[in-house]
Amino acid sequence: MIFRQLFEGISSTYTYLIASEETGRALLVDPVLPTWQRDLEVISELGLSLAYTVETHIHADHITSAKMLKQEAGSRIAGPALDGLSCTEAPLADGIPFTVDDIGLEPIHTPGHTDNHLAYRVADRVLTGDALMIDGCGRTDFQNGDAGTLYDSVTGRLFALSDDTLVFPAHDYNGRHVSSIAQEKERNPRLGSGKTRSEFIEIMNDLNLPYPKFIDYAVPGNQDCGECPEDIPAHLEQYCGQMGESPQG
Amino acid sequence: MIFRQLFEGISSTYTYLIASEETGRALLVDPVLPTWQRDLEVISELGLSLAYTVETHIHADHITSAKMLKQEAGSRIAGPALDGLSCTEAPLADGIPFTVDDIGLEPIHTPGHTDNHLAYRVADRVLTGDALMIDGCGRTDFQNGDAGTLYDSVTGRLFALSDDTLVFPAHDYNGRHVSSIAQEKERNPRLGSGKTRSEFIEIMNDLNLPYPKFIDYAVPGNQDCGECPEDIPAHLEQYCGQMGESPQG
Repeated sequence: MIFRQLFEGISSTYTYLIASEETGRALLVDPVLPTWQRDLEVISELGLSLAYTVETHIHADHITSAKMLKQEAGSRIAGPALDGLSCTEAPLADGIPFTVDDIGLEPIHTPGHTDNHLAYRVADRVLTGDALMIDGCGRTDFQNGDAGTLYDSVTGRLFALSDDTLVFPAHDYNGRHVSSIAQEKERNPRLGSGKTRSEFIEIMNDLNLPYPKFIDYAVPGNQDCGECPEDIPAHLEQYCGQMGESPQG
Repeated sequence: MIFRQLFEGISSTYTYLIASEETGRALLVDPVLPTWQRDLEVISELGLSLAYTVETHIHADHITSAKMLKQEAGSRIAGPALDGLSCTEAPLADGIPFTVDDIGLEPIHTPGHTDNHLAYRVADRVLTGDALMIDGCGRTDFQNGDAGTLYDSVTGRLFALSDDTLVFPAHDYNGRHVSSIAQEKERNPRLGSGKTRSEFIEIMNDLNLPYPKFIDYAVPGNQDCGECPEDIPAHLEQYCGQMGESPQG
């Protein structure tokens, strides 16, 4: 299996490139609009072809490049079936393996950040999206988020994976790249280290985070699988990247 | 490839179990005397057989269980050729692959913590021993250690590995389990984040660490591939573990 972790700096998102060594067919999990050309360049350099983009959830902090990559590279769009998006071509559901040649993704329904969020287990690792991050987790105050539900998802589903499972989150804001289930169980200050459900709910209720500055554009844009809103204010245009340029320049 | 990270709490050492899925033959990298029975139990539970123990260097903080495991499980003893130990049956050297069935370890000479220290690259990961730890590194003030040499080893050899290479250190004192080359390049406060060689030397010179409490017993014990010294003081006996018991109790 080919596995690459790719970083997008505007929203601090990790996109994951996973490909079959045998056939060269690739998946991109959580690709981001401003880096769609970079992602295609990496795929090209490795001699791969992009078969699918895969979303963990409807993002509020960036717009997916799923639609752009479909247009430019012919990839198909996969994501949570529960989101019910008409643009999703491969709807994914808990426990039903999504396979591309010899690559198998196991979707794990992990609601709490959003209600339909999926994590994906693949080989010895799990892509945890915004459910579980290194020493942290996604916020639970929008998109039908719920702290108690997220606690149940992480402790009940993700912490049930084997301790050696590598944790690859959708974001990190401090330069960390990878963790493990054992590590998060032991020292995640919100969800691990013996924290109870009620302690976690209190932690999340007390975060007092600012209103997400891009959410009003990102959510509708992602419900359309990656349409950059036309009414986007100038100071947020960087979130849409260089949409007009082709990957060859 | 089967891969397990096992923790020994007295010296906060990670022992790595690596085995061929096809043949079931296993390696233990840096096994520790107090946990030799636990390690054999894990090997037994997984239906494996222990072919080799492998040292990254002559440890100063614990005694290897190499000799005990040879006696109890029939494993052979591998370690740095440069150490010149008469008890080492498989001497390993920089760049010469050490293979057990379909498992291939690539030794990388990484002096600085000790002069003969080897890291081992295996598949998409590197076991960095005491040369590179998560957000840190081993000390450089004993066993022919040298800060400038360690800087050259880490930045010249380990940071030359691909960014996605997973970093598995021999120790962590804060519950962290895994990192990546990209992560250490970006944020290791001693060796990454743009630190120069002279800045690193200054950092290491200013650590003012206490004299290692077990070094006077560990080094001769490890030069004999895992002999617990007879004159060990009572308060250090825990470092030798339950040497007399067989794994079946």
